[in-house]
Amino acid sequence: MKPKQKDPVPATKDAKAPATGAKGWLGYRPEIKVLDCTIRDGGLMNDHRFTDEFVRAVYEADVAAGVDYMEMGYKASKKIFRREEHGTWKFSDEADIRRIIGDKKRTGTKISVMADAERTDYHEDILPKKESVLDMIRVATYIHQIPAAIDMIKDAHDKGYETTVNLMAVTAVPDSELGGALETLVNSEASTLYVVDSFGNMYSEQIRALVKKFQHYAKPAGKQLGIHTHNNMQLGFANTIEAIVLGANYVDASICGLGRGAGNCPMELILSFLHNPKFKLRPILHCIQHTVEPLREKVRWGFAIPYMLTGCLNRHPKTAMDFMEGDDYENIVRFYDDVIADQ
Amino acid sequence: MKPKQKDPVPATKDAKAPATGAKGWLGYRPEIKVLDCTIRDGGLMNDHRFTDEFVRAVYEADVAAGVDYMEMGYKASKKIFRREEHGTWKFSDEADIRRIIGDKKRTGTKISVMADAERTDYHEDILPKKESVLDMIRVATYIHQIPAAIDMIKDAHDKGYETTVNLMAVTAVPDSELGGALETLVNSEASTLYVVDSFGNMYSEQIRALVKKFQHYAKPAGKQLGIHTHNNMQLGFANTIEAIVLGANYVDASICGLGRGAGNCPMELILSFLHNPKFKLRPILHCIQHTVEPLREKVRWGFAIPYMLTGCLNRHPKTAMDFMEGDDYENIVRFYDDVIADQ
Repeated sequence: MKPKQKDPVPATKDAKAPATGAKGWLGYRPEIKVLDCTIRDGGLMNDHRFTDEFVRAVYEADVAAGVDYMEMGYKASKKIFRREEHGTWKFSDEADIRRIIGDKKRTGTKISVMADAERTDYHEDILPKKESVLDMIRVATYIHQIPAAIDMIKDAHDKGYETTVNLMAVTAVPDSELGGALETLVNSEASTLYVVDSFGNMYSEQIRALVKKFQHYAKPAGKQLGIHTHNNMQLGFANTIEAIVLGANYVDASICGLGRGAGNCPMELILSFLHNPKFKLRPILHCIQHTVEPLREKVRWGFAIPYMLTGCLNRHPKTAMDFMEGDDYENIVRFYDDVIADQ
Repeated sequence: MKPKQKDPVPATKDAKAPATGAKGWLGYRPEIKVLDCTIRDGGLMNDHRFTDEFVRAVYEADVAAGVDYMEMGYKASKKIFRREEHGTWKFSDEADIRRIIGDKKRTGTKISVMADAERTDYHEDILPKKESVLDMIRVATYIHQIPAAIDMIKDAHDKGYETTVNLMAVTAVPDSELGGALETLVNSEASTLYVVDSFGNMYSEQIRALVKKFQHYAKPAGKQLGIHTHNNMQLGFANTIEAIVLGANYVDASICGLGRGAGNCPMELILSFLHNPKFKLRPILHCIQHTVEPLREKVRWGFAIPYMLTGCLNRHPKTAMDFMEGDDYENIVRFYDDVIADQ
């Protein structure tokens, strides 16, 4: 859909034009890039076991919808993880990606993978760009892994890729350490720094404060900001908007919000929000109807009370994920009692 | 839950203390009142046909959770609507309410009903307060019904009730008319003016602008502001927070978000957000598990693509509600095509 272009702010005179475009709601910010992380983040719910048909449907939807990047999966180390014990998209081998996307030259959608610091054999598994269909390597790092991440970013950059760095679980990083971390990261080759609310813990005021803090380091260094949210408190979309308004230009979203636990910012919402006419909603809706929604028979993602509780407590969602996978997943009072006892 | 009290804003120094309490996140604003509209707004999904057991479970949960008000339903005119053709809570007769709440004197939860302008026989059906268990009458009005609403507010006020006025579908009100409407409403006896996003159409910037505009009239008149949101774009909770931060002290929420179409701001999220220790989450979770979630077998509420589409287009959700009630409700591409053709 292109929603009917609405007035800057209906029914008020004193509203400032929003920062999403030079012309308020009637314009758009062409620099904003949308990245589809459906397969990558969603893979955390099914050990990366998607059928080719599923991955291809998501890719075709992204191409038709004008989505800027599609992330295929992880580049996990085969020394640490046995290839035969996990799904294809934990490793995202070149041949597997090529089988899905065919001759991608015809499309405007770039391809990315995520490489976890300390869990990727990047020297071997990330090919020189001219031998690969990949366009971008996104390096995910916890704060204590930053030196490893810096080396990975340099390796990917030198091989010819666009690079980003995604500082995970930022709500668990002490303030005294974050400044130093950001200073280090803006001196890397990564062109974009992502604010990542891994635990779905942030309210809008916190998102705004954090984006401003990131911007304080990123802007003078000529780096872009990105935003990756989780929906534990039904704030995935709302927090993504807040980051965009404050200048984040790289936006992660997934179809139906498919992603770990409560999932991510839904693609269908963010495309409805952005006014760039290059984005088309209908192909995403088609993919929801025929591909992603039917997956709910097997995989239980999206907002649920256990994810809300870990989000409020700023905890990794793994206890909630285990609970949601069990037969007793409707017994939310029991989960609550366990969480409280565990504090 | 009382979520672990977190730092004002994690990992940043430059964050201002949020406006939710004098002491930032470690405090709370005792003036904030939470109103449970589960039965009233949810009744729009099942023609107000809840069992006594269901309504009593919601009431008991609210009492145990420390919720300030519970709204039982509407006070619809029996001249316009035939009593036997609709559920109990379209009319909310005194005897029906008393059957549910018994001796409410023991509780801190007040009882409200909603009275629609031009559809309520208020002279007869709203008893003098001393003959009723009701505490508050909320008058709902579209802009063109304001004169009727003013008369209803006066009637209820003179009978001894707290009164609020809920200006519905405010996103469809032209700016040129809103100022006059607010000026009229603040001169009524209503103690609280509600910002009502009936169509689930507002982004946070629009909520902020509108709340400021309402505040401009309400504050000098000594009136409180309220907020009532819908979740068409997964912004029901986010927009409620924004309104609270800007000073709204009356907050509508419903258990599991049960309400018309995409539903309302979920009670479980707003209680987790507010830090007033009088609020308890566990009774609400118990009610979700044993009472409200099981209703999904019969009633289809909550975020869904058709509601998203009417929300984006600033339309009443009725076409989406009809679609969601039909057998073809998963065919979201068809709904999208119909909506586009209909523009």
